Amino acid sequence: MAWGVFKELLISFLDYKTEKFIVVKNKKIGILYRLIQLAIIGYVIGWVFIIKKGYQETDEAIQTSVLTKLKGVSVTNTSESGPQGEDVLFVVTNFLETPNQKLGYCAESTRVLHGHCRDDEDCEEGQMVVAGNGMMTGRCLRKDEDSTGSCEIYGWCPAERDYNPEGPMLTNAENFTIYIKNYIQFSKFQFAKSNVLETNDDFYLRKCRYDEELHPYCPIFRLGDITRRAGYNFHDMDTVGGSISIMIEWDCDLDKVNFNCNPQYRFTRLDTSDSNMTITKGFNFRHTRYFKNAAGETYRSLFKVYGIRFNIMVHGKAGKFSIIPATINVAAGLALMGGAAVLCDVILLYITKERATHRERKFETPRVDNVEMSERCMRT
Amino acid sequence: MAWGVFKELLISFLDYKTEKFIVVKNKKIGILYRLIQLAIIGYVIGWVFIIKKGYQETDEAIQTSVLTKLKGVSVTNTSESGPQGEDVLFVVTNFLETPNQKLGYCAESTRVLHGHCRDDEDCEEGQMVVAGNGMMTGRCLRKDEDSTGSCEIYGWCPAERDYNPEGPMLTNAENFTIYIKNYIQFSKFQFAKSNVLETNDDFYLRKCRYDEELHPYCPIFRLGDITRRAGYNFHDMDTVGGSISIMIEWDCDLDKVNFNCNPQYRFTRLDTSDSNMTITKGFNFRHTRYFKNAAGETYRSLFKVYGIRFNIMVHGKAGKFSIIPATINVAAGLALMGGAAVLCDVILLYITKERATHRERKFETPRVDNVEMSERCMRT
Amino acid sequence: MAWGVFKELLISFLDYKTEKFIVVKNKKIGILYRLIQLAIIGYVIGWVFIIKKGYQETDEAIQTSVLTKLKGVSVTNTSESGPQGEDVLFVVTNFLETPNQKLGYCAESTRVLHGHCRDDEDCEEGQMVVAGNGMMTGRCLRKDEDSTGSCEIYGWCPAERDYNPEGPMLTNAENFTIYIKNYIQFSKFQFAKSNVLETNDDFYLRKCRYDEELHPYCPIFRLGDITRRAGYNFHDMDTVGGSISIMIEWDCDLDKVNFNCNPQYRFTRLDTSDSNMTITKGFNFRHTRYFKNAAGETYRSLFKVYGIRFNIMVHGKAGKFSIIPATINVAAGLALMGGAAVLCDVILLYITKERATHRERKFETPRVDNVEMSERCMRT
Repeated sequence: MAWGVFKELLISFLDYKTEKFIVVKNKKIGILYRLIQLAIIGYVIGWVFIIKKGYQETDEAIQTSVLTKLKGVSVTNTSESGPQGEDVLFVVTNFLETPNQKLGYCAESTRVLHGHCRDDEDCEEGQMVVAGNGMMTGRCLRKDEDSTGSCEIYGWCPAERDYNPEGPMLTNAENFTIYIKNYIQFSKFQFAKSNVLETNDDFYLRKCRYDEELHPYCPIFRLGDITRRAGYNFHDMDTVGGSISIMIEWDCDLDKVNFNCNPQYRFTRLDTSDSNMTITKGFNFRHTRYFKNAAGETYRSLFKVYGIRFNIMVHGKAGKFSIIPATINVAAGLALMGGAAVLCDVILLYITKERATHRERKFETPRVDNVEMSERCMRT
Repeated sequence: MAWGVFKELLISFLDYKTEKFIVVKNKKIGILYRLIQLAIIGYVIGWVFIIKKGYQETDEAIQTSVLTKLKGVSVTNTSESGPQGEDVLFVVTNFLETPNQKLGYCAESTRVLHGHCRDDEDCEEGQMVVAGNGMMTGRCLRKDEDSTGSCEIYGWCPAERDYNPEGPMLTNAENFTIYIKNYIQFSKFQFAKSNVLETNDDFYLRKCRYDEELHPYCPIFRLGDITRRAGYNFHDMDTVGGSISIMIEWDCDLDKVNFNCNPQYRFTRLDTSDSNMTITKGFNFRHTRYFKNAAGETYRSLFKVYGIRFNIMVHGKAGKFSIIPATINVAAGLALMGGAAVLCDVILLYITKERATHRERKFETPRVDNVEMSERCMRT
Repeated sequence: MAWGVFKELLISFLDYKTEKFIVVKNKKIGILYRLIQLAIIGYVIGWVFIIKKGYQETDEAIQTSVLTKLKGVSVTNTSESGPQGEDVLFVVTNFLETPNQKLGYCAESTRVLHGHCRDDEDCEEGQMVVAGNGMMTGRCLRKDEDSTGSCEIYGWCPAERDYNPEGPMLTNAENFTIYIKNYIQFSKFQFAKSNVLETNDDFYLRKCRYDEELHPYCPIFRLGDITRRAGYNFHDMDTVGGSISIMIEWDCDLDKVNFNCNPQYRFTRLDTSDSNMTITKGFNFRHTRYFKNAAGETYRSLFKVYGIRFNIMVHGKAGKFSIIPATINVAAGLALMGGAAVLCDVILLYITKERATHRERKFETPRVDNVEMSERCMRT
């Protein structure tokens, strides 16, 4: 028995079997089906393949390294501009200096709200002044009995001069340049590239300035141009500082000749928002320089430094032909056509006038059918 | 001939053709097939679409920028806390100072294992002391002939005082706050958001403290709260320092109203592990301040600074309806139903009792069939 | 009527319906179809499932944190090596010092091209010298009337000594070690791991040195070994510095026992390229130390520091079985087989000799068919 089945299988295995169709002379459903087929083919070829590049595998895990070099001259460059060469640069544009501070006792700055006092009880001993410069000693320093005073603190004295910065002190920064070397890699496709023009013309790379149209592969950016592209004037930012992101975007089609893989730069100011929150406006931080006098006592200069922080971010994806997504999308189209046939069948078998006849023809019932056929034969 | 084919094609092109089915009155296989169909539909709708959101395209390449601001007062804040405003913050909690070092000759610290010696031969001239403070001169400095001594070194002298830190010197850091502004962007969907409540209430953003339930959009975090949420007491960490990651996670469903896109914060201590390796416990680094005396000679203070490093990491993905994955999953369901039919056919044609009859009905063989039919007709 | 339809539906709902096939005794097309089927099965199982692991969902959004510790001794370690503990390390190998600079007037360095002058008109007052050290005063300083001189500048004087660096001053850095702790996480799969061997053997983790074969889980790297693995001799880089990326790659198959998830290290030199651009060769930056003399006047030492920057980058992906991609790929295979049948049908119905017969058998036309059958019956 099993052998019979097996033999039969073996014999019939290489016969080609194909579904038997019934032809229904219903032009409406025929046209509907063809239209659906056309739509599916159009969707797969037009949208999935041509527009969305569904035949590509994508690598969004870009590997990137950034090297930067800031060039510019400023006479009173008071502060180091942070770790050099990284994806964050800081350019000083303004600063407030509080020189010759020593550890000791003095009045809290009158600008510090929580340092104001009417009597000693307002200055709880041992507590830090909120947003202030030191620890309260418990004394309230006043000019006379009636006025408001400031708590005495222990800390670096005199307390920081905390006025609003006036015009920028380092006006030249607008003309500074940043050299940005960005090396990217898509490890899935073993593809690597740099944003720097591959040339032996050293001179070009020293003299060029980035321009979207003319010099898209020049890696040197003038600071003033960067702020302008971000939508701000450099002088809007140099008094209280700011934060700008330099986004380098790579969208690479590795199926194209030359890979069609160019860096796009986008510049955005980060420290503002529509809601105008002052807490996030500008950019500053404090730093200190420590000295010792002849007696070995330490004193320091406190700098509140304003400046523009440039944050370089790299983002990218690459796409390349891969058989798997291509196959899946083609297969999805084929499967959808099967679905379209089911839909048309439902209309044919349950909605058209001749649905009973259609059902009878489509579904061949066992005995009954034979009997029917026999009957037909007899009738003939 | 080709014309005939073409004409025939043209005429029959708009006829609707649909597969002819045979109806098998086998309730078992019928139920099995319906159950499989039901399972596939349930899987596609329930699991793929509702639970896994298979109709969405996802963007995992979140673009993010972080701005931070540390606020707090500490009297003897000895060290700058690293580059400000970035995704890494460092808060000093303790330090050891070795003041008045000059370049010269002195004994290696007794704490340095490789600086111990019994005689001059243990101190090879010109070699650096492993994990030590300078270059050996070839002399072994001992109190008397019998005791163990330390190699003489050339370097910054006296050598660093290398004892274990005692209690923290800067106790106030627990109450410091970090302001974290995180701006994210999913470029695939042109969607951007910030973790800061969009409000004009400046006062709220100055006064609020983050709380998962009450203030999920308040961007200000108290350091003590951060360590507590990471599972540690601040005072466990302030003596020898530590490292904490602040993970901001965004899981955005852009199909929902309001986008359902909230930041989730997770706090993890990084510098410990179950295996209790002391090499990675705590967090410290050294920094120096250089001075010159009246004679122009350089001397320095060496600080071994302990503190807590906060590392802000942003991670996220966004999902949005896209026709392609939706289509593929629907198509996969349809194709699977075809597979289910094949499975049921195998049972029907090779396992059921009436398999011969079923095969005969299902597979219409060419000539034989006709003859058979004729015979049937004749018999009637 | 609707009731009739409904009843009929209900009764026939559990009948199993299966396509009727016609068997075509055409071995060529039969073999072709079987070969295509075989190819599709081979493709799905062999390529998609076994090689490309198409049954896996992947997480490429690796979350990572890096802790580093540089160990080594150098006598004249002139500079802090940047923020410690982060994914960027800097090791000083050489430096040029310009001591005792004061703000004042002096001649621009003769090395600065744009500071050269023939007469005062070459030195426009108030302009910064391009790539120079200060602001021009309008005077041209010359030894005698005929020679070329340098513009006088206002800035930190004397101007920086700008000669090319000679041999490295800090030769010992080759033997420094970096301890790298990399903690990774794939949040999609709730999987976390570290590159550090999980052991209680503290001693091993202090003494071991990384080796691909012998100690893949040792997290300590000798600088000389790193440059060697990057294809360069350490001494090629220590005079003018350089930049090296340490790429940690994780490729995790979470379906395997032990997860098969090991870190791979790759070392690449970043500051060179084939096109030999000097602008990007080496790595250096400037930093300053400020002092005050007894009179309270500020002076400074300017250091041009050369060194090797190590940039640690982490990249990885993890794959784990997921029903959705597995289903989609199986379904795609099934759908493709439907496509193969269509292809074979086209050959059968439009290319073979007996195409007319085949078409007639495959497509059962309505009336005509009945008539034909009746006729056949009659003829018998």
